[in-house]
Amino acid sequence: MASVWNHNFNISIFGESHGPAIGVVIDNLPAGEYIDLNELMHFMSRRAPKKSKTSTQRRESDMPQIMSGFFNGKTTGTPLCALIQNTDQHSNDYSNLSRLARPGHADYTGAVRYGGFNDARGGGHFSGRLTAPLVFAGAVAGQILSRRGIHTGAHILEIHGIKDKSFDPIRTNREQIMKIKTKEFPVIDDKKGDRMTEDIDKARRCQDSVGGIVECIAINVPAGVGSPIFEGLENSIAQLIFGIPAVKGLEFGAGFNCAKMLGSENNDEFYVDENGHVVTRTNFHGGILGGISSGMPIMLRVAFKPTPSISRPQQTVDYSAMKNETLEIKGRHDPCVVPRAVPCVEAAVNIALLGHMLDYPNFR
Amino acid sequence: MASVWNHNFNISIFGESHGPAIGVVIDNLPAGEYIDLNELMHFMSRRAPKKSKTSTQRRESDMPQIMSGFFNGKTTGTPLCALIQNTDQHSNDYSNLSRLARPGHADYTGAVRYGGFNDARGGGHFSGRLTAPLVFAGAVAGQILSRRGIHTGAHILEIHGIKDKSFDPIRTNREQIMKIKTKEFPVIDDKKGDRMTEDIDKARRCQDSVGGIVECIAINVPAGVGSPIFEGLENSIAQLIFGIPAVKGLEFGAGFNCAKMLGSENNDEFYVDENGHVVTRTNFHGGILGGISSGMPIMLRVAFKPTPSISRPQQTVDYSAMKNETLEIKGRHDPCVVPRAVPCVEAAVNIALLGHMLDYPNFR
Amino acid sequence: MASVWNHNFNISIFGESHGPAIGVVIDNLPAGEYIDLNELMHFMSRRAPKKSKTSTQRRESDMPQIMSGFFNGKTTGTPLCALIQNTDQHSNDYSNLSRLARPGHADYTGAVRYGGFNDARGGGHFSGRLTAPLVFAGAVAGQILSRRGIHTGAHILEIHGIKDKSFDPIRTNREQIMKIKTKEFPVIDDKKGDRMTEDIDKARRCQDSVGGIVECIAINVPAGVGSPIFEGLENSIAQLIFGIPAVKGLEFGAGFNCAKMLGSENNDEFYVDENGHVVTRTNFHGGILGGISSGMPIMLRVAFKPTPSISRPQQTVDYSAMKNETLEIKGRHDPCVVPRAVPCVEAAVNIALLGHMLDYPNFR
Amino acid sequence: MASVWNHNFNISIFGESHGPAIGVVIDNLPAGEYIDLNELMHFMSRRAPKKSKTSTQRRESDMPQIMSGFFNGKTTGTPLCALIQNTDQHSNDYSNLSRLARPGHADYTGAVRYGGFNDARGGGHFSGRLTAPLVFAGAVAGQILSRRGIHTGAHILEIHGIKDKSFDPIRTNREQIMKIKTKEFPVIDDKKGDRMTEDIDKARRCQDSVGGIVECIAINVPAGVGSPIFEGLENSIAQLIFGIPAVKGLEFGAGFNCAKMLGSENNDEFYVDENGHVVTRTNFHGGILGGISSGMPIMLRVAFKPTPSISRPQQTVDYSAMKNETLEIKGRHDPCVVPRAVPCVEAAVNIALLGHMLDYPNFR
Repeated sequence: MASVWNHNFNISIFGESHGPAIGVVIDNLPAGEYIDLNELMHFMSRRAPKKSKTSTQRRESDMPQIMSGFFNGKTTGTPLCALIQNTDQHSNDYSNLSRLARPGHADYTGAVRYGGFNDARGGGHFSGRLTAPLVFAGAVAGQILSRRGIHTGAHILEIHGIKDKSFDPIRTNREQIMKIKTKEFPVIDDKKGDRMTEDIDKARRCQDSVGGIVECIAINVPAGVGSPIFEGLENSIAQLIFGIPAVKGLEFGAGFNCAKMLGSENNDEFYVDENGHVVTRTNFHGGILGGISSGMPIMLRVAFKPTPSISRPQQTVDYSAMKNETLEIKGRHDPCVVPRAVPCVEAAVNIALLGHMLDYPNFR
Repeated sequence: MASVWNHNFNISIFGESHGPAIGVVIDNLPAGEYIDLNELMHFMSRRAPKKSKTSTQRRESDMPQIMSGFFNGKTTGTPLCALIQNTDQHSNDYSNLSRLARPGHADYTGAVRYGGFNDARGGGHFSGRLTAPLVFAGAVAGQILSRRGIHTGAHILEIHGIKDKSFDPIRTNREQIMKIKTKEFPVIDDKKGDRMTEDIDKARRCQDSVGGIVECIAINVPAGVGSPIFEGLENSIAQLIFGIPAVKGLEFGAGFNCAKMLGSENNDEFYVDENGHVVTRTNFHGGILGGISSGMPIMLRVAFKPTPSISRPQQTVDYSAMKNETLEIKGRHDPCVVPRAVPCVEAAVNIALLGHMLDYPNFR
Repeated sequence: MASVWNHNFNISIFGESHGPAIGVVIDNLPAGEYIDLNELMHFMSRRAPKKSKTSTQRRESDMPQIMSGFFNGKTTGTPLCALIQNTDQHSNDYSNLSRLARPGHADYTGAVRYGGFNDARGGGHFSGRLTAPLVFAGAVAGQILSRRGIHTGAHILEIHGIKDKSFDPIRTNREQIMKIKTKEFPVIDDKKGDRMTEDIDKARRCQDSVGGIVECIAINVPAGVGSPIFEGLENSIAQLIFGIPAVKGLEFGAGFNCAKMLGSENNDEFYVDENGHVVTRTNFHGGILGGISSGMPIMLRVAFKPTPSISRPQQTVDYSAMKNETLEIKGRHDPCVVPRAVPCVEAAVNIALLGHMLDYPNFR
Repeated sequence: MASVWNHNFNISIFGESHGPAIGVVIDNLPAGEYIDLNELMHFMSRRAPKKSKTSTQRRESDMPQIMSGFFNGKTTGTPLCALIQNTDQHSNDYSNLSRLARPGHADYTGAVRYGGFNDARGGGHFSGRLTAPLVFAGAVAGQILSRRGIHTGAHILEIHGIKDKSFDPIRTNREQIMKIKTKEFPVIDDKKGDRMTEDIDKARRCQDSVGGIVECIAINVPAGVGSPIFEGLENSIAQLIFGIPAVKGLEFGAGFNCAKMLGSENNDEFYVDENGHVVTRTNFHGGILGGISSGMPIMLRVAFKPTPSISRPQQTVDYSAMKNETLEIKGRHDPCVVPRAVPCVEAAVNIALLGHMLDYPNFR
């Protein structure tokens, strides 16, 4: 398959950026779950293209229409389909389609994979726009989880070398998570956020782009969620996270820093806390041991490459003619995808968690 | 599921470290593929516990017995089952089973997940020993790939802060890959390897352990292998890599370093080379764009935490009595899993690549 | 899952009969397959509600809109979504929803399964209307198969005890198959068809309904398609066929008649024909041995129960109040689903065959 | 895949009849389920080859060895592997392997499917012997179900036209089901059983074989188990039942007889019984509506073709030389597979039911 994920419930994403519509079918959601559409729209708006503050026109174009599986404000248990119209696409001129491979994009690899038959306009099925249905599904999953007390949040940890604080891996609470969701630029330390936005602006002025890191936390996941070997929480989160365009790395807990640590530093000692719960004093394991949640916050970081669409002239090939060419990408492009990727990371984690929680005793 | 992976072919791993046997069923392998059992045993021996050079006793205990799916030296196309007897396990005393959660292990999370019914002796199904069937499957996949010219290799990139050279992301060839497979300590720069082994020895003497990074490359993967969104090469490799115990991070190409880069640095410009192939001048994308191979070498790095079994006294809990205890782990333990993890990483990548190659035109 | 089928390609069906729309996402279709939309609409029209001959209004309401995965007249290889608007549904009065379980329908079982949260209006997701997206997918699969010379056809074999001739299990050819597709009432022997239509009319006048049998054949499927045990052609066809509402039985080749036969009668002897092909003299095996095609026509029969919606008063329960009630189903209902089920059976067989053919060497 | 079935838990069957061993891996069983090995062996012995009453030698050769997933008498929740050694196979002479396609067997279709590389000795992976691991899995599933009050039973309904009584579709109870399991020849009416055994004996003496029908019932399945469209109970049972060799037909409830019925006859009217349960007065629906259990007994019938191995000379082809030949199958063969198929049908139904029950609230 390509765009199907399945773990107790099933997500099938479809659409191309310049086709009539994009969307998602979510099958096997639990029945009777109330979905707050305003909250859902707020979640989706965090992913929507950034605009001048007054304009809401583009936001409306991301409005999902629910076609099935939702009745009287609740999930029905049968497949839920959400459709998002592509109102902004214009070009109907298919004949003149560029075969210049944009560096860092999937134009060339997609053309080879599909024998040139895929709809490559605007990136087609590879477009970042396809994260909208992912975010829709993640927003739905997140509401179902939050009603069981599980909350997921994310922030920009780093952009072009400028670093925000990390989440506290032990004590982060719901209020802290919620506060970041309301920010225009989702960081913990707004001063660092200001420096990041300046850096992004500078990249834009230089017709360039920058990469960064998103950090995500999920709190109140009970111990015992997940499975060993191929179906652990890390495996499932990873399969979903690498479904977000531009992701090039993923780490849990101490992650790559483990390579510099001793076992005596990295091991998180257990103790029974004042509430009689088994907890750890540190959280280098990122809340997951053997693919299974420990009850501590789940912590992960996701590396995003700089937006590949930059306006500078770039050397590339015309892969239909197999000759070298110079490419200048027109139009405005996000000089950094990281701010809009924050809800995408949350969405992916929500989906993975819900998939595993559906196995959890008494969840349904 | 727990220990099943499925992408055009199906791998089902079973067994506990102190049960009668461990093993794997591989379903839907192509028929008529010659498997060289000596080569397979060599691959598996790279994962086997390191021993004094004269002793081969433990190695024999890892000898897989093929129960089905293999006839006259070739795969039959029907399910291939390999069984590895657990000859070394002794304890039949089930009554006195420790409920002290070893820090950094899955003792506690596994007990919660399975209501205490799992066989926790020696880590049970969570034991690193379960990588033996994974490596078996990866060795089989690797032979099938190598006969199509695709070669996968890995080395220790870093141990406790000591770094080896990286693979050349453009020019690494089959000979370089093969050479490392023959080394007792698989690094590119043996001097760095000597420093690493000294450091590991020091950790052992200090009743401690160290973590590290494995780097893996796959060459000659044709362009066009993989799929967008959830079933890309990165997603599949990730799902398998996080099936190896102690993995805490994974990155492709420039990976986390992307967070410090500009788009103009990170974008790999395309050109048509002297053979008429579309290639890139740099390989920050790690051979994968949009989940699909570009034809450039596939490059990834995997972070391993320090072995959690250390001999020092550690604070922990008895999770059956829910009280705090001090634990001293007896016996000898690998002070670093990274050397034995090298073939595990190769195996995981081989399995993912074969799964995707089975879709590739004319592969079967 | 509920409404997802997966075998090399993935079908996810969604929608309720009184919701905004129904549809299907087909993922992993081969790229570059030309789809003739007129032919597709003809296939779908065979399933559409039968009406006075001049009226086409309702037929238009079944018009699928392709939202993705289709470009310049061909499949792109990325997920193909087709949406069918529900223009005919009216009731927006949710409050007064009946909780009277219609006998023979899934009203009661669906309500228990989904805790009463499913949208039960008009049968909801259990409605026969949901065969429209199935038929869409089957029509697409059928076009891809027919371009490789594989043709599937079906006819009404029996209605309320009145029997049509069977397909010749050896010599049925493309022309015979195509001829039936053009008939208003798809039988081989039109005189038997006349008797059947009279019988159906009689049932209608009596406020009753009748059941029947559909027979299906697929010709030119090469030998060697399918797999043993759980993923044979029979298993896959069965999983899909039982996805059509009202199906209560399925048999291949001699089917239930096997119970009356001797091995010496039932065994189909092989011989090499004048073209050098291995064939059988009889075809009691229905073209499948060990789950794998033999190269002989694939033959199956599907039993449909009488339409459960009948206008006569019936005893039943109000399952919200848990008390006995008398039900009178209002409105016009098909007194026999079998004629409209003919293309549904073809569609299911097409989907199963395409799924297996995608494994077949050189098919893609 | 070939021999993998997956619905909340995963079954992977492996082995060839003349290889070292056959077996099964069952992944994602609930943990802590007590398995009575004597009861399990009794279930398996019902499938074992029939022999003189004193001989137990062959029975021992079917003894499964549990390799994993079972500890202190209970399931661990991690994958359970059972191995059955092939002690009876002798021939190691691979060179002289017959390429004469036995009519009615998968010799020819398997050879085409696997390019001649499959191990065809004794039927290989297509052998009826591969039902032993299926029955093992079904026996385990059956014990888990029976502890929740759900009981499955089956009997021979028909052999070569001689018919047993049917199960009462409303009132069949546990005692009636259990009684048949203890019979040497599993019928309800032993007089009919005597006539059947005479008929089978006659077929044997005539070097011929006979087919038949197995009827299966499952009682106390609660209402609300299953799902619509592709993942209903009927779909799942069908996918498993067609995994048993020689099955050519399957029907639920009134099945093919529906084709002769009126809706007013076939509709099962609901009423609230004296215990306040919703039940039906008749059970033509076979306990399943819309893929979901109604709470009434689940009833199905499975048609088996006559054993294809008969001793009479048969015309066939040598498919390696592509020429016509006469074949005489040597050795003793069951002249009727139906008696040994009875526990296979039960096993398949148990597996399907457990798969769906794992979704059922409070089952785990």
